Amino acid sequence: MLPTRGYASMGPASRLAPFQFERRDPGADDVLIEIQFCGICHSDIHQARDEWGGSIYPMVPGHEIIGRVTRVGGNVQKFKAGDIAGVGGYVDTCRNCASCTHGLEHLCQECVVFTYNGLEKDRKTPTYGGYSSQIVVDQKYTLRIPSTIPSANAAPLLCAGITTYSPLRLFNVERGTRVAIIGLGGLGHMGVKFAVSLGAEVTVLSTSPSKEGDARRLGAHHFVVTRGKESPGVLTNQFNFILDCASAPHDLNLYLNMLDRDGVLVLVGVPPKALDVAAFSLIRNRRRLAGSMLGGLGEIQQMLDYCGENRISSDVELIAMKDADGAYERVIKGDVRYRFVINMKTL
Amino acid sequence: MLPTRGYASMGPASRLAPFQFERRDPGADDVLIEIQFCGICHSDIHQARDEWGGSIYPMVPGHEIIGRVTRVGGNVQKFKAGDIAGVGGYVDTCRNCASCTHGLEHLCQECVVFTYNGLEKDRKTPTYGGYSSQIVVDQKYTLRIPSTIPSANAAPLLCAGITTYSPLRLFNVERGTRVAIIGLGGLGHMGVKFAVSLGAEVTVLSTSPSKEGDARRLGAHHFVVTRGKESPGVLTNQFNFILDCASAPHDLNLYLNMLDRDGVLVLVGVPPKALDVAAFSLIRNRRRLAGSMLGGLGEIQQMLDYCGENRISSDVELIAMKDADGAYERVIKGDVRYRFVINMKTL
Repeated sequence: MLPTRGYASMGPASRLAPFQFERRDPGADDVLIEIQFCGICHSDIHQARDEWGGSIYPMVPGHEIIGRVTRVGGNVQKFKAGDIAGVGGYVDTCRNCASCTHGLEHLCQECVVFTYNGLEKDRKTPTYGGYSSQIVVDQKYTLRIPSTIPSANAAPLLCAGITTYSPLRLFNVERGTRVAIIGLGGLGHMGVKFAVSLGAEVTVLSTSPSKEGDARRLGAHHFVVTRGKESPGVLTNQFNFILDCASAPHDLNLYLNMLDRDGVLVLVGVPPKALDVAAFSLIRNRRRLAGSMLGGLGEIQQMLDYCGENRISSDVELIAMKDADGAYERVIKGDVRYRFVINMKTL
Repeated sequence: MLPTRGYASMGPASRLAPFQFERRDPGADDVLIEIQFCGICHSDIHQARDEWGGSIYPMVPGHEIIGRVTRVGGNVQKFKAGDIAGVGGYVDTCRNCASCTHGLEHLCQECVVFTYNGLEKDRKTPTYGGYSSQIVVDQKYTLRIPSTIPSANAAPLLCAGITTYSPLRLFNVERGTRVAIIGLGGLGHMGVKFAVSLGAEVTVLSTSPSKEGDARRLGAHHFVVTRGKESPGVLTNQFNFILDCASAPHDLNLYLNMLDRDGVLVLVGVPPKALDVAAFSLIRNRRRLAGSMLGGLGEIQQMLDYCGENRISSDVELIAMKDADGAYERVIKGDVRYRFVINMKTL
């Protein structure tokens, strides 16, 4: 076993604190990665504080992981020591179900082994995430990182990147599609970059007037402040696709009514409480509401390669490990431009 | 103007009562229809009682209309006197917008002129529905009724029929699709008939154990009682498509969790209050929630022709006009098998 250092939450009200644990010795299909950078995802906070229920403690959060491969198992062809590698939201799945065999591993019907706050396939061994010095992952669940993307800026692609890229592609956003992005945060700023890159006409809907400059710098064509209960009338029936990146409670009907005929609103943020949906918000204009999270392994690699070719990556604030608690508070306030990434050298 | 007899609601708490009004003289493109039968749709009750807001009184409800053509205008080729004709949920639209020009008149972006409780395109003249002796409608918005369907049984096809047929076709329900129908009432029993006819494996989800016999007679392969808060575990992730025909408040997450990967639940009933949707109910399995109501003119005619070829029609209880108030009460209790149709001879 490999002695490993990390930072863990010990319970719903605990601050993050140093934690020692062990990783398995790399097997024939495994790669050992020395972690360089790990992004802070809003879901880290939800889970560290048990806001979704069922949290497993001690919890080492982190599923936006970039690092250098330091050792590979005998069967590993995909990586060699020295390569930069990434790990996202899950580190194993059943590999046999209809989802796994169709490249939709994130929707595995048997068991998604989440990167942290999960259990290995033995359903006993807890998984520990990327707020740590190293990780051992099967090569199949490890991603190649294009050399054109700086490692710190690549880390958030592993969750925020794929979570926004996947629904944009699934619902065929392309040149001319009228897209709105709700919320300009970690997810939203990636959504803007991808939608703009795909040729869409992009509107950012934000409650923060101060974010207009950034929205336009990221490529958004329009910016509308949506504070208040009423939909700006001019937005009614305007969009083909809305990516809802808001994690705070919000009035979904306000945004559904902005969808044009057959338009779809995809939830990628996870507000803590159920959202009210009026039947007429969907019946009018034959609208659709969907949810999405992460993506399949092939799709994640495709997204990373697309980012490499198109010079897309995350705007990050690098922080030290000891400052993660403070970063959590700033994420909750929406005060981050646009993703905190922990420099694991500071561990 | 044509003196016309009908039954109207005079206000939210009023019973239906005899009401005299005038129809326009038929223009060059109009057909005059002597109404033989008119179905009672749950939306008649919602609107007569102003449960959706904005009701216009006096209100002559009814948008499942079958009758005999007695006169046609000079431009009318589609009908001649003596033909049986149908009128559904709307009697005019703008005819120019992207929806109208794509055969989606029910989603007209300018003005859907609803058959009753609406305003003509002058936005002043109220429309009166099918609880009446006759109606004048532009031939374009009048449907041909196949001779193989008895008129009384055809009436509910104009709303309950198209409202269930349209989403089944839109979402490609076909041989082998695992379909669930929530609620075996006016909409639900048509949903079962269409889904079975399309080759789907059909499960009826009902709170009424007494409806199992009827569900199976209609062709359903499975019947599950869903009273209570918990989803029968065996149904988790089981369906590709769920048609939600319930008009009463219900726990949508219970049913969303029954959807398999990329499955869709379509709301066609309209519960009076907003429904709670937990983000995870949609994010898990990448599920979708949609709404639908009525269909375009071409699609309604296609549905009617399909019914004619496949001997599909509604199971009805014929009632006299004076008994409509009592029928409303029975609809609210779910005590109808499966659609009340008013014999307009009794007016």
